[in-house]
Amino acid sequence: MARVVVDVMLKPEILDPQGQAIARKLPQMGYEGVVAVRQGKRFEVEVEGPADEAALERVHTIAETLLANPVIENFEIRVL
Amino acid sequence: MARVVVDVMLKPEILDPQGQAIARKLPQMGYEGVVAVRQGKRFEVEVEGPADEAALERVHTIAETLLANPVIENFEIRVL
Repeated sequence: MARVVVDVMLKPEILDPQGQAIARKLPQMGYEGVVAVRQGKRFEVEVEGPADEAALERVHTIAETLLANPVIENFEIRVL
Repeated sequence: MARVVVDVMLKPEILDPQGQAIARKLPQMGYEGVVAVRQGKRFEVEVEGPADEAALERVHTIAETLLANPVIENFEIRVL
Protein backbone atom coordinates (compact mmCIF):
# COMPACT_ATOMS: atom_id res chain seq x y z
CA MET A 1 0.00 0.00 0.00
CA ALA A 2 1.24 3.48 -0.82
CA ARG A 3 0.14 6.96 0.12
CA VAL A 4 -0.14 9.61 -2.58
CA VAL A 5 -0.66 13.28 -1.77
CA VAL A 6 -2.76 15.54 -3.98
CA ASP A 7 -2.28 19.26 -3.27
CA VAL A 8 -5.04 21.44 -4.69
CA MET A 9 -4.62 25.22 -4.81
CA LEU A 10 -6.65 27.95 -6.47
CA LYS A 11 -4.96 29.21 -9.63
CA PRO A 12 -2.89 32.36 -8.93
CA GLU A 13 -5.30 34.56 -10.90
CA ILE A 14 -8.33 33.36 -8.88
CA LEU A 15 -9.27 35.45 -5.85
CA ASP A 16 -8.89 33.61 -2.52
CA PRO A 17 -11.14 35.32 0.06
CA GLN A 18 -10.38 32.72 2.76
CA GLY A 19 -6.65 33.30 2.48
CA GLN A 20 -7.14 37.06 2.37
CA ALA A 21 -9.26 36.97 5.51
CA ILE A 22 -6.50 35.12 7.36
CA ALA A 23 -3.79 37.50 6.09
CA ARG A 24 -5.85 40.51 7.18
CA LYS A 25 -6.49 39.07 10.63
CA LEU A 26 -2.82 38.40 11.43
CA PRO A 27 -1.67 41.98 12.19
CA GLN A 28 -4.72 42.46 14.44
CA MET A 29 -3.57 39.41 16.39
CA GLY A 30 -0.07 40.84 16.71
CA TYR A 31 1.62 38.76 14.00
CA GLU A 32 3.61 40.92 11.62
CA GLY A 33 5.70 39.95 8.62
CA VAL A 34 3.19 37.90 6.65
CA VAL A 35 2.58 39.31 3.18
CA ALA A 36 -0.07 36.93 1.87
CA VAL A 37 -1.86 33.66 2.63
CA ARG A 38 -3.43 31.27 0.11
CA GLN A 39 -5.64 28.43 1.32
CA GLY A 40 -6.01 25.15 -0.52
CA LYS A 41 -6.79 21.50 0.03
CA ARG A 42 -4.60 18.50 0.69
CA PHE A 43 -5.72 14.94 0.07
CA GLU A 44 -3.95 11.80 1.21
CA VAL A 45 -4.99 8.97 -1.10
CA GLU A 46 -4.07 5.46 -0.02
CA VAL A 47 -3.76 3.16 -3.03
CA GLU A 48 -3.51 -0.61 -3.24
CA GLY A 49 -0.13 -1.91 -4.31
CA PRO A 50 2.91 0.22 -5.14
CA ALA A 51 2.82 3.87 -6.21
CA ASP A 52 3.89 2.97 -9.74
CA GLU A 53 3.10 4.82 -12.95
CA ALA A 54 -0.30 3.17 -13.32
CA ALA A 55 -1.34 4.08 -9.77
CA LEU A 56 -0.22 7.69 -10.20
CA GLU A 57 -2.06 7.88 -13.52
CA ARG A 58 -5.21 6.69 -11.73
CA VAL A 59 -4.78 9.26 -8.95
CA HIS A 60 -4.28 11.94 -11.61
CA THR A 61 -7.63 11.04 -13.20
CA ILE A 62 -9.34 11.05 -9.79
CA ALA A 63 -7.78 14.43 -8.96
CA GLU A 64 -8.95 16.13 -12.12
CA THR A 65 -12.46 14.68 -12.00
CA LEU A 66 -13.26 14.62 -8.28
CA LEU A 67 -10.70 16.36 -6.06
CA ALA A 68 -9.97 19.52 -8.02
CA ASN A 69 -11.89 21.83 -10.30
CA PRO A 70 -9.43 22.30 -13.18
CA VAL A 71 -11.19 25.47 -14.30
CA ILE A 72 -10.12 27.39 -11.18
CA GLU A 73 -7.65 25.06 -9.41
CA ASN A 74 -4.22 23.57 -10.05
CA PHE A 75 -3.16 20.32 -8.46
CA GLU A 76 0.10 18.51 -7.79
CA ILE A 77 0.59 14.83 -7.09
CA ARG A 78 3.48 13.35 -5.12
CA VAL A 79 4.24 10.11 -3.36
CA LEU A 80 4.49 10.45 0.40
CA MET B 1 10.31 36.97 0.46
CA ALA B 2 9.85 33.28 1.13
CA ARG B 3 6.93 30.93 0.88
CA VAL B 4 6.20 28.55 3.74
CA VAL B 5 3.69 25.71 3.46
CA VAL B 6 1.53 24.63 6.39
CA ASP B 7 -0.14 21.25 5.90
CA VAL B 8 -3.04 20.63 8.29
CA MET B 9 -4.55 17.16 8.60
CA LEU B 10 -7.04 15.68 11.04
CA LYS B 11 -5.34 13.48 13.61
CA PRO B 12 -5.45 9.79 12.58
CA GLU B 13 -7.90 8.94 15.38
CA ILE B 14 -10.37 11.64 14.29
CA LEU B 15 -13.12 10.58 11.89
CA ASP B 16 -12.91 12.26 8.47
CA PRO B 17 -16.38 12.15 6.86
CA GLN B 18 -15.32 14.23 3.85
CA GLY B 19 -12.51 11.84 3.00
CA GLN B 20 -14.75 8.85 3.58
CA ALA B 21 -17.40 10.26 1.24
CA ILE B 22 -14.80 10.62 -1.51
CA ALA B 23 -13.42 7.12 -0.93
CA ARG B 24 -16.94 5.65 -1.09
CA LYS B 25 -17.79 7.52 -4.27
CA LEU B 26 -14.74 6.32 -6.22
CA PRO B 27 -15.84 2.72 -6.98
CA GLN B 28 -19.24 4.03 -8.12
CA MET B 29 -17.39 6.26 -10.60
CA GLY B 30 -15.38 3.31 -11.86
CA TYR B 31 -12.13 4.00 -10.00
CA GLU B 32 -10.88 0.92 -8.16
CA GLY B 33 -7.76 0.46 -6.07
CA VAL B 34 -8.15 3.31 -3.59
CA VAL B 35 -8.29 2.11 0.01
CA ALA B 36 -8.83 5.38 1.85
CA VAL B 37 -8.86 9.15 1.42
CA ARG B 38 -8.16 11.80 4.07
CA GLN B 39 -8.89 15.43 3.38
CA GLY B 40 -6.98 18.28 4.95
CA LYS B 41 -5.95 21.86 4.35
CA ARG B 42 -2.88 23.41 2.80
CA PHE B 43 -1.82 26.98 3.43
CA GLU B 44 0.84 28.90 1.52
CA VAL B 45 2.13 31.66 3.78
CA GLU B 46 4.30 34.32 2.19
CA VAL B 47 6.63 35.90 4.73
CA GLU B 48 8.80 39.00 4.54
CA GLY B 49 12.51 38.33 4.40
CA PRO B 50 14.15 34.90 4.43
CA ALA B 51 12.59 31.71 5.78
CA ASP B 52 14.99 31.63 8.71
CA GLU B 53 14.42 30.17 12.16
CA ALA B 54 12.61 33.27 13.43
CA ALA B 55 10.23 33.29 10.46
CA LEU B 56 9.45 29.58 10.83
CA GLU B 57 8.87 30.07 14.55
CA ARG B 58 6.39 32.82 13.73
CA VAL B 59 4.59 30.63 11.19
CA HIS B 60 4.47 27.83 13.78
CA THR B 61 2.71 30.15 16.24
CA ILE B 62 0.27 31.31 13.55
CA ALA B 63 -0.42 27.69 12.56
CA GLU B 64 -1.24 26.55 16.08
CA THR B 65 -3.40 29.57 16.92
CA LEU B 66 -5.16 30.32 13.64
CA LEU B 67 -4.65 27.73 10.89
CA ALA B 68 -5.04 24.47 12.80
CA ASN B 69 -7.04 23.24 15.75
CA PRO B 70 -4.39 21.36 17.77
CA VAL B 71 -7.06 19.41 19.63
CA ILE B 72 -8.11 17.50 16.51
CA GLU B 73 -5.50 18.41 13.87
CA ASN B 74 -1.79 17.92 13.28
CA PHE B 75 0.22 20.34 11.18
CA GLU B 76 3.55 20.33 9.38
CA ILE B 77 5.58 23.30 8.24
CA ARG B 78 8.04 23.31 5.37
CA VAL B 79 9.73 25.87 3.17
CA LEU B 80 8.59 25.78 -0.43
